[in-house]
Order: sequence, then structure tokens, then C-alpha cells
Amino acid sequence: MAAQQIKFGILGCAEIARKVSRSISIAPNAILYAVGSRSLEKATKFAKENSFPDSAKVYGSYEAVLDDPEVDAVYVPLPTSLHLKWAVLAAQKKKHLLLEKPVAINVKEFDVILEACEANGVQLMDGTMWMHHPRTAKMKEFLNNPQHFGQLKSVQSIFTFAADSDFLENDIRVKPDLDGLGALGDAGWYCIRSILWANDFDLPKSVTALPGPVFNKAGVILSCGASLHWEDGRVATFICSFQSNLTMDITATGTKGTLHVHDFIIPFEEHKASFTTATETWFNELVSAWVPKPSEHIVMADISQDAHMVKEFSRLVGNIKFEGSKPEKKWPILSRKTQLVLDAVKASIDKGLEPVEIVY
Amino acid sequence: MAAQQIKFGILGCAEIARKVSRSISIAPNAILYAVGSRSLEKATKFAKENSFPDSAKVYGSYEAVLDDPEVDAVYVPLPTSLHLKWAVLAAQKKKHLLLEKPVAINVKEFDVILEACEANGVQLMDGTMWMHHPRTAKMKEFLNNPQHFGQLKSVQSIFTFAADSDFLENDIRVKPDLDGLGALGDAGWYCIRSILWANDFDLPKSVTALPGPVFNKAGVILSCGASLHWEDGRVATFICSFQSNLTMDITATGTKGTLHVHDFIIPFEEHKASFTTATETWFNELVSAWVPKPSEHIVMADISQDAHMVKEFSRLVGNIKFEGSKPEKKWPILSRKTQLVLDAVKASIDKGLEPVEIVY
Repeated sequence: MAAQQIKFGILGCAEIARKVSRSISIAPNAILYAVGSRSLEKATKFAKENSFPDSAKVYGSYEAVLDDPEVDAVYVPLPTSLHLKWAVLAAQKKKHLLLEKPVAINVKEFDVILEACEANGVQLMDGTMWMHHPRTAKMKEFLNNPQHFGQLKSVQSIFTFAADSDFLENDIRVKPDLDGLGALGDAGWYCIRSILWANDFDLPKSVTALPGPVFNKAGVILSCGASLHWEDGRVATFICSFQSNLTMDITATGTKGTLHVHDFIIPFEEHKASFTTATETWFNELVSAWVPKPSEHIVMADISQDAHMVKEFSRLVGNIKFEGSKPEKKWPILSRKTQLVLDAVKASIDKGLEPVEIVY
Repeated sequence: MAAQQIKFGILGCAEIARKVSRSISIAPNAILYAVGSRSLEKATKFAKENSFPDSAKVYGSYEAVLDDPEVDAVYVPLPTSLHLKWAVLAAQKKKHLLLEKPVAINVKEFDVILEACEANGVQLMDGTMWMHHPRTAKMKEFLNNPQHFGQLKSVQSIFTFAADSDFLENDIRVKPDLDGLGALGDAGWYCIRSILWANDFDLPKSVTALPGPVFNKAGVILSCGASLHWEDGRVATFICSFQSNLTMDITATGTKGTLHVHDFIIPFEEHKASFTTATETWFNELVSAWVPKPSEHIVMADISQDAHMVKEFSRLVGNIKFEGSKPEKKWPILSRKTQLVLDAVKASIDKGLEPVEIVY
């Protein structure tokens, strides 16, 4: 079994890399193998604090991780503006890529990354952890059940959190040269993904930003929203923000059913998550109560959703490495569609809230 | 006490009038006194089936109810296009008005009704029952608490129900000459009211309909939505529809807190209702769970929210009748603001989704 473990290198010591280091150590088919930072001291400290095995390699540069022939895959939590350079270089060095979201500054840059992955036969997956929670599959079962949910009609999604003053001053997500997409790239990514997920990744016809996006002095988005529209009348809206208390919902309505989830990105609890469904709900005779009431479903997770993500990524990498399989195309396609819609929201904001057609 | 009871006349035998007849019989300060229909037979049947006292008057016309000097107040559940005529006539006959929503086809017609009420010193209240549930006051307490909720930033509201084929063919709410506002007037009214309610009835600067409104062959709205926008960056969206399973949510985010309610219009249960709040929620150290988790609040209702509505309306009418008070201006103002925003959504749809400024 140990021989089949995928050896991970981590580029940089971002806060989120602490969580993913733990995910790698939990996933049975993955191993923390190397970390690189521009500062060897930081990398050493990071490895020590995040339970890297004593045998792990600690490097004073990102290049050194990519040059280590033992590294199978890299986790890239670098600022979005650095994805193009480092993801392409990693692919060229034949390293499989677990890439943080947003995957790029725009889909044009992402396509360069995708080409490099394809040319070098490496797997790409983005770091959208909730996609891998067993709850997500259960919710999708409900949405895809014609008797219980019917045809999808609307999705409302929201992801907000109240950034503190330090974040709003110093975080890479408010710096135009680092994560220039701000709250849209960070929080909006999840909302867009949830909407596409509910729509079986059928892209909308058009996207229109909501009035009143809020920017910081450097022009980075702190709050915004959009509506998405499909030819057959399906509609979706989302709001994303660094300026409201932590909130993360999906509300999906179908002709026969309704889905609610309030912690879709990070479950309230690590090993137990729930969602609520209703099917053909109506009222009692005098319309003073519901019949039936919506019901709650609880899903247990043996390992955390982030460990599930690493496990699935490592399984695909293992298939390539040990069995000669091709990379799984599903994941890069989902990343690209999400980025495409994200770009359209940004374009609509830049064009004074004009509708922007989605061209795949 | 009996002498202080407000005597109600009901105009017509609409389905909703059955529910409100019960509300009147439950409210301690109200009494079912008369019902009028264009058919005496229907009125007689209605009175019998809805527990009117034997002494109740049964009339073969609406006029006869208005001409009965004993009638203090009328409940008007007639199709919206008839509100102007019958509400004005009722006011001229000095009958206080409990008027179903939407209160009029547009604010211009509603202003004629308001003038008649003012000229004749009668109380007007619309039939938005959830405003009177004790839960609503509790939720408002939370929203107005600067420590627990902070400043309001966003509201998402939805009200959909899956109308059956009979409704979609025959209900007055899909007939252009009866309830020409369709799903916007019926379901959208509640969404708009909830958004204004969360915003302390501070009107938005502008309203923009969402792409993709759905119409029936006669041009009546079956599904639509809108975004609302305030100068200071507050934003709201809503979706209303006759084409999705029963769903009725408010999600409000503030700088410090979040409110969720999933049955705001009709509580799941008649005498017990809940809502969920969160204050300064964040994550545990590795962002794998929430700290603290949102908390549920349960509010008991001694009598149903519709009976609370009748009780409050009757209290105001009693103040006028027995104590010489003036009509309470709050309720007509809330009706007018709701209608004003509703008109703006309709105008935005009619203008091809242009933003429409709100002018009070």
C-alpha cells in the first residue's frame, strides 16, 4: 500500500496549506513529501508545525520542489496571479496539480495551464473541497431525482464572511496584483460552482452583475453579485462578500422539490453534515401549516471533505502513475466552466452591469 | 367586552375568505357579522360552512354589506382589478378596510383608495399575515440589534409554489383582467415586503428585474425576480414563481450576523415557529468546522398569525370607533411602499430589464 502512495510537494506556506497538509496526512493514498518556500526557514518551520514526516524534504524555493523527481503531485496555494507561471512549470516537470481556486486570473490564462497539463499528461484538480463531501453526492441524488425534485427552476447562492480590518488591509485577496478578483474570485467562486453544480454544469446563456458592487481603494471587489439566466427559463442569483457575517447557502427549487443547505462550503461539523429537502409540499386545508414539512438528512463523513478531495485526486494520479490511465477530464472542465462564468461576472461589472453572453 | 367587538362583513366567497373567517372568529375583538356574494346561494352556503353565527347577515350583493349600518369593517378578498371600485366604495360608506394583497393594480390606483380612506377616516390594513406573527417581531429584534446583527448588507428572498394545471388555467391570479400582476402580485408581494421589512422600510434607490421572466399566453407573469439596490451598497434579490415547489425564505446578512427563516409567509406549524440566527460566526483553527454554530429560536403563537392580524386591525378600528383615535398610518404606508417597489419591478420587466429608480 505504502508504495502506492502519492508523494505531495507543497508550494509555499499559505494559511490554507496548513489545512491541506493535514488532508494529505489523513488521505490513505497520499503522503506529505516536500514543502518549498522562498525562505528555507519558513519551510522548515512549516514542515515541523504541520506534522511532516522526518523524512520530508524542505526546500528554499518552489523550483526545488518541482525539480525533485520523487514528487508526484504539487499543491499550489499561491496567489492567483502566480498560478500561470507555477502551474505551467509544474506541468512541464510532470507534476500533477492540485490547484487552489480561483484557478487563474481569467480563462485565457487557465487555458495555458490546461494546455501544459494536457501536453504533459498530468492531472489537474482545483481545491473546491465541498465537491468531495459525501453529502454533495447525496444532495445531487436528490436534485437528479425526477420524482422528488422534478426539473430545476432556480438557485440562490450566497457566500459571505466578515473580513477583519487586518484582512481588508493586508490579505492577498484584496491586493490587485495578487488576487485581483477579490471577493468574486474567492467567495464568488463557490457560489458560481454551486449554481453550475445544481445545473449539471450546463452553462447559462448570460450573466448580469447585480447593481452596487463594492470595491476597495485599489479597485478590488469586496462585495458583488450576479444573476444567471438559461434559455429555458432557469434562473440563479448569488451574492458574495467580504463584508457580511459568515453565510453559505444554496437554495435550489425544482418543479417538485426544494433543497436547502446552509454550510455547503465548510460543514458546521467536520464529520457530520446535513441538508433539507421537500417534495411536493403544500398546505393543510385552511393554509395554516405545511403538509408535509421539509425533512432533514444527515450524512456522516469518515474523513474530512478536504481529505476526501486529496484521496480522490491521489486516486486519479495513482491510476495514471501505476496503471497507465489518462488524466480524468471532468475536473479541469468543471474548473474551466466556473472560471468562464466568473470572468463573465467580472466583464459585466466592468461594462456597467451589461448582460454578458457565455460562449464556451 | 362583546360590545367592543368589531363587526366584520366579507365581500365575496374567495377561498382565502374561508381562512380569514376563521381568523375573525378566533380574534377576541372581532365578530363575523355579514357576508355578501353576487349569489345569495353562495353566500348562504359560505356562512353555513364557515361557522358564521346564526344571527349573521347574508347578502346577495357586495353593496348590501356596505349598506348595512352595523358593519364596522370589511374584508376584501376580491380580484385585484376590483379593489379600486370596492375599496373606495367601502371607505365612502365608512367601512374600515382589511384589503387583500396586492392592494391594487398599481400605486396610482392605490392612492385613490388611500385618499378615500383618509377622507372618510377609515383604517386600512393589507392582508399580509406574517407581519403579525410574534416571530416576526422577534426576528426584527435580532435585525435591529447592533451587537448581534450589525448593519444590514444583503437580503435574499424567495416565494414559489407549484401551481397545478387547474390553477394555471383558471385561477384569477393568471387572468390579465383580474390579477394582472400574476406571480409578481401574488408571490412577489411577500418577497418585496420581506426585503423592505428587513430594511426598516427604507426604499431602495433602484430596482432591476432579473432576466428571463416567464409569462403565460395571456401575458401574465408566472415567474420573475429582481434585484434591489440601495445607495450605501445594500443589495437584495428575490425570486417569485408559480412554477417551483413551495419555498419561502428570507436570508438576511449583516456585518455581524445572519438571519434565516424558511417558512416566513406560512409557518410550518400553526402555533410554533422558528428562525435561525448567527452572530460573528467563524471557523475553528483549521477551518474545518464553525464556531459558534448558528442557533435556532422557537416562538410560540397563542393564536394563528392571521387571527393576530385580525386582532390588531380590530384593535385599531376599536380605537377609532370607541375612543375617537385617528387611523394608524403605519399600515397604509407599508402597503404603499410594497406596491411602489412591485410597480418598479413590473416597469423594469416592461422596459426590457432596465433599472427603475424608486421615487416615493
